[in-house]
Amino acid sequence: MPNHASNRQAPHPLDPLRPEEVQAASQVLFKHVQCTAEELRFKLIDLAEPAKAETIPYLNHKGQAPDRKARVYYHLKPSHSLLIAIVNLTKKRVEKELEAAESQGPVDWHEFELVNKACNSHPAVQAEVAKLKLPPNARIHNDPWAFGTDDANERRRLFQCYMYVALNDDPEANHYSLPIPLAPIFDAHTLELVELQRLPMGTGDELDPETQPWKPVEPVEYSANIMGPDALRKDLKPLQVVQPEGPSFNIFGRRVEWQKWSFQLGWTLREGPVLHDVQYDGRPLFYRVSMSEMTVPYGDPRTPYHRKQAFDLGDSGFGLTSNSLNLGCDCLGHIAYFSGVRVSNDGSPVAMPNVVCMHEIDDGIGWKHTNFRSFKSSVVRNRQLVIQCTATVANYEYILAFVLDQAANIHIEVRATGIVSTMPIRQGLQVPWGTIVAPGVLAVNHQHIFCARIDPYLDGDDKNTVAYDECYPVVDDPEIDPYGCAFKVKTTTIDKPGGYELDITKNLTYKIVNESRINSISGKPHAYKLHPVPSQMLMMGPKSFNYRRGIFTSKAIWVTKYQDDELWASGEFTNQSREDTGLAIWSNRAENVKNEDVVLWHSFGVTHVTRPEDFPVMPVEKFVMSLKPANFFELNPSNDVPRSSQSENKSTLHTVGQEPCCRPSRI
Amino acid sequence: MPNHASNRQAPHPLDPLRPEEVQAASQVLFKHVQCTAEELRFKLIDLAEPAKAETIPYLNHKGQAPDRKARVYYHLKPSHSLLIAIVNLTKKRVEKELEAAESQGPVDWHEFELVNKACNSHPAVQAEVAKLKLPPNARIHNDPWAFGTDDANERRRLFQCYMYVALNDDPEANHYSLPIPLAPIFDAHTLELVELQRLPMGTGDELDPETQPWKPVEPVEYSANIMGPDALRKDLKPLQVVQPEGPSFNIFGRRVEWQKWSFQLGWTLREGPVLHDVQYDGRPLFYRVSMSEMTVPYGDPRTPYHRKQAFDLGDSGFGLTSNSLNLGCDCLGHIAYFSGVRVSNDGSPVAMPNVVCMHEIDDGIGWKHTNFRSFKSSVVRNRQLVIQCTATVANYEYILAFVLDQAANIHIEVRATGIVSTMPIRQGLQVPWGTIVAPGVLAVNHQHIFCARIDPYLDGDDKNTVAYDECYPVVDDPEIDPYGCAFKVKTTTIDKPGGYELDITKNLTYKIVNESRINSISGKPHAYKLHPVPSQMLMMGPKSFNYRRGIFTSKAIWVTKYQDDELWASGEFTNQSREDTGLAIWSNRAENVKNEDVVLWHSFGVTHVTRPEDFPVMPVEKFVMSLKPANFFELNPSNDVPRSSQSENKSTLHTVGQEPCCRPSRI
Repeated sequence: MPNHASNRQAPHPLDPLRPEEVQAASQVLFKHVQCTAEELRFKLIDLAEPAKAETIPYLNHKGQAPDRKARVYYHLKPSHSLLIAIVNLTKKRVEKELEAAESQGPVDWHEFELVNKACNSHPAVQAEVAKLKLPPNARIHNDPWAFGTDDANERRRLFQCYMYVALNDDPEANHYSLPIPLAPIFDAHTLELVELQRLPMGTGDELDPETQPWKPVEPVEYSANIMGPDALRKDLKPLQVVQPEGPSFNIFGRRVEWQKWSFQLGWTLREGPVLHDVQYDGRPLFYRVSMSEMTVPYGDPRTPYHRKQAFDLGDSGFGLTSNSLNLGCDCLGHIAYFSGVRVSNDGSPVAMPNVVCMHEIDDGIGWKHTNFRSFKSSVVRNRQLVIQCTATVANYEYILAFVLDQAANIHIEVRATGIVSTMPIRQGLQVPWGTIVAPGVLAVNHQHIFCARIDPYLDGDDKNTVAYDECYPVVDDPEIDPYGCAFKVKTTTIDKPGGYELDITKNLTYKIVNESRINSISGKPHAYKLHPVPSQMLMMGPKSFNYRRGIFTSKAIWVTKYQDDELWASGEFTNQSREDTGLAIWSNRAENVKNEDVVLWHSFGVTHVTRPEDFPVMPVEKFVMSLKPANFFELNPSNDVPRSSQSENKSTLHTVGQEPCCRPSRI
Repeated sequence: MPNHASNRQAPHPLDPLRPEEVQAASQVLFKHVQCTAEELRFKLIDLAEPAKAETIPYLNHKGQAPDRKARVYYHLKPSHSLLIAIVNLTKKRVEKELEAAESQGPVDWHEFELVNKACNSHPAVQAEVAKLKLPPNARIHNDPWAFGTDDANERRRLFQCYMYVALNDDPEANHYSLPIPLAPIFDAHTLELVELQRLPMGTGDELDPETQPWKPVEPVEYSANIMGPDALRKDLKPLQVVQPEGPSFNIFGRRVEWQKWSFQLGWTLREGPVLHDVQYDGRPLFYRVSMSEMTVPYGDPRTPYHRKQAFDLGDSGFGLTSNSLNLGCDCLGHIAYFSGVRVSNDGSPVAMPNVVCMHEIDDGIGWKHTNFRSFKSSVVRNRQLVIQCTATVANYEYILAFVLDQAANIHIEVRATGIVSTMPIRQGLQVPWGTIVAPGVLAVNHQHIFCARIDPYLDGDDKNTVAYDECYPVVDDPEIDPYGCAFKVKTTTIDKPGGYELDITKNLTYKIVNESRINSISGKPHAYKLHPVPSQMLMMGPKSFNYRRGIFTSKAIWVTKYQDDELWASGEFTNQSREDTGLAIWSNRAENVKNEDVVLWHSFGVTHVTRPEDFPVMPVEKFVMSLKPANFFELNPSNDVPRSSQSENKSTLHTVGQEPCCRPSRI
């Protein structure tokens, strides 16, 4: 059977838009606005998810499928205002229209290309580049960066174009190893040069009086082609994953069933993969699980770096920037791929093949016990299902994965990799804002703060509660604890929305509880607990734009009452945003969240103090948060996994070289 | 070639003892003490490691191999005093003799069996068991537990025998699901019943007036044989790891070379696997890396549970309790095994085959970058080398692994699994000390606190320093930071030994620094940083025996000046110990540790609030600490790993079932 959607059946209400739906949305909008093709410019068409109140009955076979709807961002020339339409695809009409004159929409590939070209071809930029006296083989690149915010009154749509040199034609030449001290600012609407900003090469804001000739330096390359075959290790032997009977999953449209799990695999341009209607053994767990936002503030106060703060979901989109994956490169074993679609600026759908991959992995031992009297062992392996994407946001890569296992745990894993953002620096100089990672190359220290969004419906009930457990010692109570060894667990229920903190010293553990269902064995309510990623939160204070644009960065845990469309932690429009229109508002409403339709958010990340070891491409830094059942099941959910055996696993015994012999020559 | 040691060559000075060396040690000791075979009882014979001052020159080809020595624990009847001898195997003489009259040695299998039998066959115990009126098919088991400490004057060698029932003959019948309220105390030397202690079934210390008839209850089983084939999942498809050209490692005796790494694979009865002389690309990194200790205090103050605190390395030994591993059960792929040896009570060596396994795994993407202009991607996979053992300490399993990767990171991974320690409880009752995990079964909340020991010698220098970095915002300095976005890194050098704390809020990062070597790119000193496992430390206060027996549990980080034989965090003898004779003393010496031969210790673990999901066998709970280079290399050490390609990886494209189709029937 061919590996593409034949689209004969109607999509599930939570499925991503299909190409023909994108086409239909643009056609409906064209008709609606009644303008010429030149006047209407599309930025984004993505699924507008149906209201939960309509969707739950459908999932329970008690209602019709909600109408399919598309969210459209567009511009009507000559106005620069961002326009939003909700197009009802079922009824073929525009259902809602909004103007977001005060906001900037996310970056789209079309404008990115236009700005890129405008910068490279601008005579003033070229004149400035000429002063660098680059060698004849040099190619100039620029990465238009989301401008960031340092002025609450700025309303232009601006890009800061950081510029680099590549010294050869290799398609993977590492221009990030050759940053040049130019960063022109362009207006994306007018494509005008706003300012030919130059970059400081020293410790403060001061600039060279004039752009100086480039000092030749060897770039640090990662291209195997440039490095040549002799530069690579020779002793890595192939390792292959073989599944002679195929994978353990089944796919029905975008419904995935695997090892008692089942879920609807969503995908959006903003978030990448999304898990909907997540069930285990027929029991609903989560209505929606997603990565909601991620921001990267940089800690360098020198102009213009003080503005560097990307929101890589809200400004760019983990879906929009997702790689089209190749068999055998990103996964081993039996791989299923899922595709996406985006809109071109003229309204036609653009296929995004293989933006999500799914496969099984073996994660070592899942559980084991050896009866020490009989020497009999039972071992099960920890088979996992990985749903993964790679987002390339200019220099940097995020590998986002949802990982399910057989013990009913769900893990959200991020691998940070790619090339750190690089700045030119005068050779021999040190600044307190980062590390020299290559000759003339500064990698500024920064934070990555992610926010995952967990919308639970344990046992299918829409009334859940977030609570936390703290473990504390029983101190000085000789009556019950004469030896001072006792400790207890105190559970606190969260009844108000807001931001909450972790406390490792108390083993503080957040959990989602369904208070109306009691575990028949333990007598405790059904729950899923969060294993967080303990992280330093945003260092920038409440007055900074960094803080005000993304409140989620200030606390590890957020609790809100569910409302439709409240999916994105910093609000819908983060590009050049001045205030957080997401959790800052939603977590501040005076409403009850105890035994309500509640949403749990977890902010986590890393403060990246850069190292030469992170260059040219950074080895993955991995973060894993987990949701694990706690009194949700009556026993180990993986007790029924077939035991590991050589007859199935067919491992190979290593039999050479283990006899004691002479010391190897090198030591 | 056969898979066993042919032992033709002399062992490396850091290799574990060989069977003939164990034999030789016992013979030397027999001759030395001049007693009958009945009078000399061996407890332990293990490698006594050579002094570092003798070993380093040997490693550098500048000295002779140090003498091989054995550490022997033994008893001379009729005395019960623990005796220690250091036997020089090269010179065939006893080099050192000590009496540790105030200490208890670790548990050995011989006495464990004797106590076990004494308990099961004791008429008083049998009379008490008879009162339970168990069904005729019931088998009685008891687990002799290290007694713990609640009396500083206790000098007997005591075991508390927790008792259980198994209802059938299956070799994996789960008796831990059927605890009975009896816990006799036996003297291991005299094998006398000290007290036939009974267990509380209620909320406090109060006992039933008389042992009551057992209330029949269904055990929760994990034996596939008892569960029957219909109880297991049917839809798990085989997944095999194939290495058509064999593994990427080479083994020379116990020297392992893999992907620029090389190390001497040690093993002790106490610690299990130990990495010695760890080098990357010919550059020394760590002189010794080991798991040093692990203690499990339980939080239940009721008698006798207040005494439950196992030191599973010091009391039992991760090596001594290691499983003999089977091909295809504990690992997938191409597996090398390493064996150990212990001594029987009569002085003869007992082979412990396959106690350590080593194999390669694929851990997903190692690094990736996609050039978004050319769409060209470079991906390398994260191949890792895993050196692993499984220790079964009665009911519980610890899977300890050292994991090396191609980016010069070393990870120490612990998977906690096995069966939680269970206690009987009256049905329908709840206590604040744990969770009911099966009918009539209480699993008490407890902590597991591990301590890993890192003895560095970065670049082969024995002068290293531990320092920590803190990231802090530059606040209210409009001159350099007008927008409030700046943050800095402050480095503090540790010059005094002691215990130190983590602080997530400051991204506090400990690192081992070689101050005399400066990275030519970054200008910063060579270092390896610790990625810790942030954990709640011991809850029991400084007055408790729990605290006083293992100070390492109170702080996450410890720094000491190196001295030979200071390997075990709580001191040499933890069994029934009253005071910590390890870090409590070593970290308290008034000596300089800056730019000295320094040792870094990391304590971490988990507060385990038990769940029914942890029963009968607990799904692995995984903890990973890492050591990563920071300014040690001039670029990404894995930049030279061959790129991932389908021609090597041979993955399979999933092509069925992905067309949209009808909704699956279940939802």
